[in-house]
Amino acid sequence: MSTPTTPTAGARGDGHKISARGEARRARIIEVATSLLARNGSRGTSLAQIASAAGVSQTGLLHHFSTKEQLLHAVLDRRDEHENALLWRGGPDPGLGIFDIVADVVADWPKHPELVGLVAILVAENVGTDAVLKDRLTATYRATVARLEETLVSARARGEIRADVDLHAKAIEILAFLSGLEMAWLVDSDVPAHATAIGWAAAQVEALALTR
Amino acid sequence: MSTPTTPTAGARGDGHKISARGEARRARIIEVATSLLARNGSRGTSLAQIASAAGVSQTGLLHHFSTKEQLLHAVLDRRDEHENALLWRGGPDPGLGIFDIVADVVADWPKHPELVGLVAILVAENVGTDAVLKDRLTATYRATVARLEETLVSARARGEIRADVDLHAKAIEILAFLSGLEMAWLVDSDVPAHATAIGWAAAQVEALALTR
Repeated sequence: MSTPTTPTAGARGDGHKISARGEARRARIIEVATSLLARNGSRGTSLAQIASAAGVSQTGLLHHFSTKEQLLHAVLDRRDEHENALLWRGGPDPGLGIFDIVADVVADWPKHPELVGLVAILVAENVGTDAVLKDRLTATYRATVARLEETLVSARARGEIRADVDLHAKAIEILAFLSGLEMAWLVDSDVPAHATAIGWAAAQVEALALTR
Repeated sequence: MSTPTTPTAGARGDGHKISARGEARRARIIEVATSLLARNGSRGTSLAQIASAAGVSQTGLLHHFSTKEQLLHAVLDRRDEHENALLWRGGPDPGLGIFDIVADVVADWPKHPELVGLVAILVAENVGTDAVLKDRLTATYRATVARLEETLVSARARGEIRADVDLHAKAIEILAFLSGLEMAWLVDSDVPAHATAIGWAAAQVEALALTR
């Protein structure tokens, strides 16, 4: 989520330029694939289904993504870009404001339901060490934990956070809360996810702040 | 997870008694199914695979579970019994001790890795409203939230918890932390899950306790 992604819009991996129309088709395939994967998982989704739902031929799809794995990575790229845009939209160093930002991420779910649950099902499908996406998912997870930890370390260096908290563990806790609440929202759409996140954020800031 | 489960050992649902050997075979099927389902999901696991891994014939398996859905429910029954036994082993009303108990649940994961991720993949596979396990997973989730909330409400009635916390949201937060940390542990086995949970529990008690 926090590793810089090479922009792929306008160019294929092989440096071959694609037209605006081709680019729009590529984006459409990724969007449709995201919805299908978040609902049915990678095992439950074939390239043929994705092509059909996106209104392109299989050949058309293979022009953009020659393997399912390539498409899965493109879907995760889009999801990571979206999450990074939300998490770091206030700048790279939000300090204790990161907790309110996380609550805002939760508020974003109903606007992008096709993204909710995507990582959960791909993680669940890729538990085995030989699984196709395992290394990528692990690397992305660690990068986000590291970036959250850096944010908290900077805030402490500025005197915003008390000294006796394990900030690596706190970064893990922040992501655990966020992904666990996502699971709760998937299992029970009546869960007051945003209200829960707001209360959580306020309690975190109160507990961590040096002055209280 | 908190709904009382009718004991099934020694009797089939139809009241037909089964032998000790049959019972052991049934338990073995559930155990093997749990491991396969947690790793490959319901979509990625056939009854034939489960029978083969359990060392029974398909007819032998069908004697105990006539459908995959029946077996899925038996696997979830076992998982819910295990979690309930851990969560409420100190009695039905642990008060603020519930946070340390949750940390102990995390410490239990390496002892029962076949159970970790089971609910995550089944939730991810059952997001659709028409999904086979959706209602059961939702009901179980709500029952556990309700039981956690009751615990906190009782503790507050005894003067152990400050008045200004939304205890329904806190119950949702506890389960979100637990299931999100489980996801983290699945994606990165190096995550210091138990240490994170211990720090989390201490911070929760400090933030909620009336006297501090």
